[in-house]
Amino acid sequence: MSATMKDLAKETGLGLATISSYFNGGNVREKNREKIEAAIKKLDFEINEVARGLKTNHTKLIGVVIPELEMIYCAQIITEVEDILRNYGYATIVCDCRSDVKREEEALDFHFHRRVDGLIIMPTSRSGEGLKRFIDHNKPVVVIDRKLPDVDCDCVLVDNEKAVKDGVSRLIKAKHQKIGLIAGPKDVYTSDERIKGYRRALEEHGLEVDETLISRGDYTIGGGAKAVASLLDSRPDMSALFVSNYEMTVGAMIELNERGVRIPEELAFIGYDNKEFAYASNPRLSIVAQPTKVIGKIVAQQMLERLGGDSKKPGGIWKLEAEYIEGKSI
Amino acid sequence: MSATMKDLAKETGLGLATISSYFNGGNVREKNREKIEAAIKKLDFEINEVARGLKTNHTKLIGVVIPELEMIYCAQIITEVEDILRNYGYATIVCDCRSDVKREEEALDFHFHRRVDGLIIMPTSRSGEGLKRFIDHNKPVVVIDRKLPDVDCDCVLVDNEKAVKDGVSRLIKAKHQKIGLIAGPKDVYTSDERIKGYRRALEEHGLEVDETLISRGDYTIGGGAKAVASLLDSRPDMSALFVSNYEMTVGAMIELNERGVRIPEELAFIGYDNKEFAYASNPRLSIVAQPTKVIGKIVAQQMLERLGGDSKKPGGIWKLEAEYIEGKSI
Repeated sequence: MSATMKDLAKETGLGLATISSYFNGGNVREKNREKIEAAIKKLDFEINEVARGLKTNHTKLIGVVIPELEMIYCAQIITEVEDILRNYGYATIVCDCRSDVKREEEALDFHFHRRVDGLIIMPTSRSGEGLKRFIDHNKPVVVIDRKLPDVDCDCVLVDNEKAVKDGVSRLIKAKHQKIGLIAGPKDVYTSDERIKGYRRALEEHGLEVDETLISRGDYTIGGGAKAVASLLDSRPDMSALFVSNYEMTVGAMIELNERGVRIPEELAFIGYDNKEFAYASNPRLSIVAQPTKVIGKIVAQQMLERLGGDSKKPGGIWKLEAEYIEGKSI
Repeated sequence: MSATMKDLAKETGLGLATISSYFNGGNVREKNREKIEAAIKKLDFEINEVARGLKTNHTKLIGVVIPELEMIYCAQIITEVEDILRNYGYATIVCDCRSDVKREEEALDFHFHRRVDGLIIMPTSRSGEGLKRFIDHNKPVVVIDRKLPDVDCDCVLVDNEKAVKDGVSRLIKAKHQKIGLIAGPKDVYTSDERIKGYRRALEEHGLEVDETLISRGDYTIGGGAKAVASLLDSRPDMSALFVSNYEMTVGAMIELNERGVRIPEELAFIGYDNKEFAYASNPRLSIVAQPTKVIGKIVAQQMLERLGGDSKKPGGIWKLEAEYIEGKSI
């Protein structure tokens, strides 16, 4: 019923190869391009992407696996990635695995069976095992926020250690010595790196690391609130606090408000990410902010480059710097 | 190279019809199901979803169009929808149209050419024109947050008018008469309904509506901050403020902090959505919160029901209530 490529060839007087080239992003002279587009309109031609996928073995789908879509850090990166890829005709299928390794495996299965052309992942699992079959099938993989062992693919990271080191150093320079850290969960790459940054800041300033000043949350709002509560209870002498992700920053503020702790008079404070939240807080929070837009851009560009043919090149590593934004909380 | 359905039939001793039924969600006896699953493992069988899509004319893809993935309201609903649909084997392709009608059209084109099985949309455009071709092709459409004229499909709404009416009434009962409203953009359904709620609250309490107390933002953080600034400048006598979406609530708090306006002493305040932000604010904000999880559930269930065969039934309307959460800002 609907028009075929043959009909387009007939209508335009061009060869099938030219028509096919047009649809597959090949080189087509401007004049011919115009002819084809006029014919598409006239014949009400609809590309059958499904049939095309079977023929070219490309689905033009990119699988995305993230820990939590509701985390603003994820949402901001994905928005950027989706936007760029869509401009190149790629659709992104986003699977939120709720920071659960089992769900992450399922999501990888799901994408694999969907025959996605490439995979973008912010991993929950520490192992890169599940990614190997994509790489074995020549599907480019771009990893965000972590370097996975034994997997050769592009990684886009933030220099987490430096981000936290710089922040904590500012607290030290403001004459704080008893500085609490709300750290992330065990066995998470970003979490480990950020703790390293905290230790290095203290060491570089000749201060001893007191383990009882480190309290672990799980990167959630509730977990952040709890970790702050336990630190306030056990270390009432703490004079400054560094919180190492956005959701825990919100949780910390909830707990501090609940207890009526005054910032910065009773406690100096540095949070993480989301400039708008920092500005909307009273007093305005000092934060370390990750460059989500830039991360999204690099991830999308790297994926496109690999899809364009460079899938055999060894993986590269991009390490971006976080930004320190001064507030009134120190 | 990879195993086919025929290989599975041979391995299990079952008919091809049974194997096919298994993959297409049909009724298969438990004993046979186990046999098939064992064979899938043994033969390392991979379903070719692309080939299947061509054969069954089902892609198992659901197109989603939203104004902004970064809006927490969207992200929370989409997380829920994606989660439920994935459990039924459906992948969601999310297109963020940045509240732009032209981009929304492109996103609809994109989904249509992808031959999605159904469409979920939180519309930017006021017209339902772009949805008709989905409905004409028997693709179920579920609309969030708006009733579109001339389109017969399922709509999941929040009672926006009542949500705002109830909130503003609380300010009136707290003896406020000069109540400012940060309203949403023109020609947006939710925005119009919320303004209606503001007017009705005043009218029901015998107060006159003073148009100079209504300032429009564009549902963004920046727009909210600007709208609040202009209201503070033009109406210094205003004693209470109602802000009618989440992002503008954040913007309002930024502006109020900037100016050092004390809440509730100098200005009573009710914001919108995102309990966590309300709790993390100092003082804790009173808010009207929309039931995003429930919305996501109903949207996904309705889509699944339609996909299951009920696509001819006339569209239904779900109207949900927002919740008022008391803080310390009045």
